[in-house]
Amino acid sequence: MTAVVGGVTAPQGFLASGVPCGIKRRGKDLALIISKKPAAAAGALTQNEVKASCVDWARKVLEGGRARALLANSGNANCCTGRRGERDTRSMARLLAQKLGIPSDQILVASTGIIGQFLPMERVKKGIGQAVRRLTLHGSHTAAEAILTTDTRPKELAVRFRAGNRWVTIGGIAKGSGMVSPHMATMLAFLTTDADISLAALRSALRICVGETFNAITVDGEMSTNDMVLLLANGAAGNLRIVGPTGTSYQAFLAALKKVCRYLAHEIVRDGEGVTRLMRVRVTGASSLEAAAKVARQVAQSLLVKTMVAGRDPNWGRIASAAGASGVPVKPGKLTIRLGKRTVFRWGEPIRLPREELLETVDPPEVQIGIDLASGRHSAEILSGDLTEGYIRINAKYTT
Amino acid sequence: MTAVVGGVTAPQGFLASGVPCGIKRRGKDLALIISKKPAAAAGALTQNEVKASCVDWARKVLEGGRARALLANSGNANCCTGRRGERDTRSMARLLAQKLGIPSDQILVASTGIIGQFLPMERVKKGIGQAVRRLTLHGSHTAAEAILTTDTRPKELAVRFRAGNRWVTIGGIAKGSGMVSPHMATMLAFLTTDADISLAALRSALRICVGETFNAITVDGEMSTNDMVLLLANGAAGNLRIVGPTGTSYQAFLAALKKVCRYLAHEIVRDGEGVTRLMRVRVTGASSLEAAAKVARQVAQSLLVKTMVAGRDPNWGRIASAAGASGVPVKPGKLTIRLGKRTVFRWGEPIRLPREELLETVDPPEVQIGIDLASGRHSAEILSGDLTEGYIRINAKYTT
Repeated sequence: MTAVVGGVTAPQGFLASGVPCGIKRRGKDLALIISKKPAAAAGALTQNEVKASCVDWARKVLEGGRARALLANSGNANCCTGRRGERDTRSMARLLAQKLGIPSDQILVASTGIIGQFLPMERVKKGIGQAVRRLTLHGSHTAAEAILTTDTRPKELAVRFRAGNRWVTIGGIAKGSGMVSPHMATMLAFLTTDADISLAALRSALRICVGETFNAITVDGEMSTNDMVLLLANGAAGNLRIVGPTGTSYQAFLAALKKVCRYLAHEIVRDGEGVTRLMRVRVTGASSLEAAAKVARQVAQSLLVKTMVAGRDPNWGRIASAAGASGVPVKPGKLTIRLGKRTVFRWGEPIRLPREELLETVDPPEVQIGIDLASGRHSAEILSGDLTEGYIRINAKYTT
Repeated sequence: MTAVVGGVTAPQGFLASGVPCGIKRRGKDLALIISKKPAAAAGALTQNEVKASCVDWARKVLEGGRARALLANSGNANCCTGRRGERDTRSMARLLAQKLGIPSDQILVASTGIIGQFLPMERVKKGIGQAVRRLTLHGSHTAAEAILTTDTRPKELAVRFRAGNRWVTIGGIAKGSGMVSPHMATMLAFLTTDADISLAALRSALRICVGETFNAITVDGEMSTNDMVLLLANGAAGNLRIVGPTGTSYQAFLAALKKVCRYLAHEIVRDGEGVTRLMRVRVTGASSLEAAAKVARQVAQSLLVKTMVAGRDPNWGRIASAAGASGVPVKPGKLTIRLGKRTVFRWGEPIRLPREELLETVDPPEVQIGIDLASGRHSAEILSGDLTEGYIRINAKYTT
């Protein structure tokens, strides 16, 4: 498997564009990705009970399992916009369907930005025309730019691998930044592949990858209303069709997809609002996967652990407290905590370390936090960022 | 019921003191409260699985239902300190027992501060001697000072009411500031009363009050390892014994206790780390009390709602998103959101308000957030503060 340039347009048979249509005050805000021929489509959608209408729309499209195009706007989430919001989502899909000459039920729509405001539909409609006219085989980067909100840089990757006697490519773009704590889905990430793969295999591969990547990150513990990961597979690589989890091609596909998803997920955390340093929380010895994930998430979301990482402060008692507050029965007498490579607390007893060694554990740009519960065989890992004054500055004046 | 001066020493038969013993770099850090005669004792303790040894000690004392003294240190939580920590808690109780000539199982111990460090026991022992020597009938204020950590001011109140032909007084002191999100208990709050009241009635009154006051606040969503509310009732008022929930004296006692608890709980939020503005989240129309509380807590703890309040930004979509992410089945089509007195979202539709009216809703120092789920008759309310750069500044350098 090798990394290649081109993002979502690296796989054969995909075009993309990104244009400014005036939803945001400045910059590109409308992205379009199309497949030249119908593609199998799989997705993971937010589990927030308050969902944008585009999420409901995407659910219906994904039930059909086929899609040709993916239209995404930034700057406005078109969420909590009631019946008019639903109409606007439908209009976007229908107008694009008309322009491309394809059925509207093969068009996925995604929105990200402020909640509770109506889309400026006249501008959006003009923008759709422009986006169609500007579609190119190298449009991934402009599309990646057009989906950003408070992100500071586009997030893009493509990898290539052998499936039988053919090269297959998987590409992806993503945005994140704030309101990032995907539970069963994630922020926006759009993935394309020219693999010929059955819908069942595609769905299974995406489910596995999302669980291990996008669902294992958090920036601020806020599950969004508009999270989506969408994956289109158009078969243009001409490989022998990948049908199930046993073949080597499926394993190669899964590994490549995971690589793209992991890179994009980590980029989302690295570029999280105000994030200056990362923390990786690994929980081992849990009695179940759920218990491991619950403890990991509680620690990764703890404001006191996050500010500790921001301040390079080896104040590991905050980790113990967060683990104990997770709702999982944590036995302090069995609890072991590691910072970097040092054990700071073992089986209920603090380990005295020279201050310098302790300070070194929190010095790297990615702080490693290990928590062993000694209660079972399950483990979970989550990547999170620190909490800094930058986050407050960004979010204390978002709409105003 | 009237407010009176004197805090925990306002009720008859209580003495208190606060001294500096050198756990903290500067200031008082050891508080002592004693009842001249044995008192009925009730308490609420943290539900964190990782608990300080003083919490375990307090549980045993409270099972006995009688206490004479309450010793509390700040600057060190004596938590995650293993067997040595347990020994230190025991030593503190035993030394004080010796000096006062009372059994050690009638002595409550509380600690608050940094987790994972051993107490400087030589200093603590000297401090206990000093604290005993300085006990006075007006010592509440120095005791209130001695339990503070990053708090900026002492928190103290006493109220007096008629029970039959006697005046009964209830007094209290508290500390809070950070790591404040009591679930079944709270931060440190010590309450005294000279009421003659049965242990059962005392426990019941405290349970009710804690649920409605200390358990209904949050500063940073962090449940502490050392939370305690302790209440001593020594009967010195000479009132006809309060025995059960039917009499008017019990109702008067409950109302007075609630007043003291509510004041102290609110003071904890007002003086929360970095808090500049308050928010009161009220959820109505929930299908159960648990559902109402869950939605209220999710919104009250949301970083995006907190920063919105900090920035006086009427970005109510963040409230909708947090409510939807709470795990409670929230139907967006039935959801109504109010900011101040304005409805901004009703039954799934956004309400357009003039920008000025919208800005007014988030202008008061206590922002009112109303969420109606239209799914039942249950409601819950929680008081929280905003999240500012001040919180980050305090917590990015706590131990260093």
